[in-house]
Amino acid sequence: MFSVTVREHLMIAHSFHGEVFGPAQRLHGATYVVDASFRRPSLDQDNLVVDIGLAGTELRAVLAEWNYTNLDEDAAFAGQNTTTEMLAQIIADRLAMRIQAGALGESARQLAGLTVTLHESHVAWASYERPL
Amino acid sequence: MFSVTVREHLMIAHSFHGEVFGPAQRLHGATYVVDASFRRPSLDQDNLVVDIGLAGTELRAVLAEWNYTNLDEDAAFAGQNTTTEMLAQIIADRLAMRIQAGALGESARQLAGLTVTLHESHVAWASYERPL
Amino acid sequence: MFSVTVREHLMIAHSFHGEVFGPAQRLHGATYVVDASFRRPSLDQDNLVVDIGLAGTELRAVLAEWNYTNLDEDAAFAGQNTTTEMLAQIIADRLAMRIQAGALGESARQLAGLTVTLHESHVAWASYERPL
Amino acid sequence: MFSVTVREHLMIAHSFHGEVFGPAQRLHGATYVVDASFRRPSLDQDNLVVDIGLAGTELRAVLAEWNYTNLDEDAAFAGQNTTTEMLAQIIADRLAMRIQAGALGESARQLAGLTVTLHESHVAWASYERPL
Amino acid sequence: MFSVTVREHLMIAHSFHGEVFGPAQRLHGATYVVDASFRRPSLDQDNLVVDIGLAGTELRAVLAEWNYTNLDEDAAFAGQNTTTEMLAQIIADRLAMRIQAGALGESARQLAGLTVTLHESHVAWASYERPL
Amino acid sequence: MFSVTVREHLMIAHSFHGEVFGPAQRLHGATYVVDASFRRPSLDQDNLVVDIGLAGTELRAVLAEWNYTNLDEDAAFAGQNTTTEMLAQIIADRLAMRIQAGALGESARQLAGLTVTLHESHVAWASYERPL
Repeated sequence: MFSVTVREHLMIAHSFHGEVFGPAQRLHGATYVVDASFRRPSLDQDNLVVDIGLAGTELRAVLAEWNYTNLDEDAAFAGQNTTTEMLAQIIADRLAMRIQAGALGESARQLAGLTVTLHESHVAWASYERPL
Repeated sequence: MFSVTVREHLMIAHSFHGEVFGPAQRLHGATYVVDASFRRPSLDQDNLVVDIGLAGTELRAVLAEWNYTNLDEDAAFAGQNTTTEMLAQIIADRLAMRIQAGALGESARQLAGLTVTLHESHVAWASYERPL
Repeated sequence: MFSVTVREHLMIAHSFHGEVFGPAQRLHGATYVVDASFRRPSLDQDNLVVDIGLAGTELRAVLAEWNYTNLDEDAAFAGQNTTTEMLAQIIADRLAMRIQAGALGESARQLAGLTVTLHESHVAWASYERPL
Repeated sequence: MFSVTVREHLMIAHSFHGEVFGPAQRLHGATYVVDASFRRPSLDQDNLVVDIGLAGTELRAVLAEWNYTNLDEDAAFAGQNTTTEMLAQIIADRLAMRIQAGALGESARQLAGLTVTLHESHVAWASYERPL
Repeated sequence: MFSVTVREHLMIAHSFHGEVFGPAQRLHGATYVVDASFRRPSLDQDNLVVDIGLAGTELRAVLAEWNYTNLDEDAAFAGQNTTTEMLAQIIADRLAMRIQAGALGESARQLAGLTVTLHESHVAWASYERPL
Repeated sequence: MFSVTVREHLMIAHSFHGEVFGPAQRLHGATYVVDASFRRPSLDQDNLVVDIGLAGTELRAVLAEWNYTNLDEDAAFAGQNTTTEMLAQIIADRLAMRIQAGALGESARQLAGLTVTLHESHVAWASYERPL
């Protein structure tokens, strides 16, 4: 199995609901360093997993929707905790939709799966892995 | 599949037995930067894989047993080489016992698996992955 | 010249004022990975620059005032942009006050200077360096 | 499952063929930071996945064939794009041959699989994973 | 003293002249992860060392001249070894010219100095520091 | 001012004397990731700060004296705490002696200074900087 990973970042504000979150129930924020990994069992005719330029462009486009925002004000997240692991899933699902819509090229339709990892600090990170 | 990882470190002395270890047969030591990854197929009602605060607390508690010690003097390791890969297993198994005992909360009993990685330097690391 | 550095992190929300900040004028947030470096020309009688345990404790204490908060609501910052470089200065100055008050021990009064670096992502960071 | 990883690096020149590569169609180069991971379900009698010294030696030997060369001049790659993902496969396959030839010792014949990751920058990397 | 640093990268081919370079006399290549640090003794009226957006844009513009090229074919480098340390100087000098031409804004004319660091691998890097 | 840095590592056992060290008074150990930086105001005729191959060889030679040993048994350290900062000085001084003896080549006699940094974990490091 082959994979290619590109790295970008995202800076947001948010707060959490529930005692388990302690002081993170207050409005605060995070930089997420975001790694998107694309995988497939064999390479395309150019010896690529995915066009790395397009992969970066699409990842930035997905992140742009939330970059420099307060997630608490996004109606799509109402009543939900925007934890690192949940954001990894949302970002992976958005990338999957773009791949299926052809944004990463025809060859990318043969991708087998996708993993998105969000590093919230030097000592904590979360991932979501899904098939395509 | 979701995962959450927390990072801590451990500083120990030890020595190895067997020619394959060369100069590492002498008493020496290591800093292990320890990553513990917890995984489950779906999030809990708070959108969490695990309470990251508890995860860090329990990882520190497991490491505390050996931190600032000489592993050669620990009877539990008598006759065994405390290699990086073996320590990864020991730490993962201890975390698994704590999870099963409820130390990471009720929801953590639904964790599917655990991976522990020990970085012994900037150019070498070892992992042990197990189900729960 | 000797130095010792300890690393911690801080998660905050804030917004900026001024066109130069573009989308960062909106409420957003950041994880700052914070490195505090202490320096002195000679070591103390224990061969230390500073008690690394106390250094970490004091750095965490300084960061705790803002950790998991919205800096826009802190009256001390009213009318000011809480840029990465400005926060590096504020944190360095607070550490300097604690050193002068004896919180890092008697020997730490001989420290010559202090540098605080805040990493806001994997591609950008800022520092403030001052004498003591 | 256990794994052990060793890190080395490789510096090469090359060019790509195909519009998808944009400016990378010109002769340029890369440093690849190369991680080779070896895995097996149980440890050997020394509590090892693999002799880490031999693993590093064999990885360096594989990389030495291409280190400080122009891959465009290597007949084995004629008509092929030497992408990061393709090089990960080539390096993994060479390591597999050496393992099968006994270069990592008798015990290494029980390795279950191998993953090679090439980091081409701080924001992009590729992997190839295979069984043994 | 304050500083702000931004990170980019550059991928080139080149070769060296002189026995000291050993196998690096052959045509090969490198990824340079490039850190440009800007420093000044006090912040501007926005609490900035430099507009980080402009800083990144200008650094990319400087690197674009050489990105995905063979430095051996650049007449400006004829008869010179394009070592990591020499490239750090060239990049710093180009950034200095752009700062002096106003490309980083009026306020940036008050910058006191500049350091450029090029990481050629995970185990080697070089810097050039200059006043402005 | 130019600098070139090379990275190696060192694995040792030791213990400390004095209440300030808490549990580190017990025999334990550390991996030190060691960065040696060499600086000079102008480059040599090959455009080098130092022959990076020789720099790595000499750094490894200095570290080899202590690698895989228990520093408590080294008579040279009797009655001294082998703290990270003290070891940075010892290593820098040994490198300086080798430079002065010509081990890094004639040109290296023009080096202006040296900094050695020892990373003892992902959250703590120490440096010693000296002229030559």
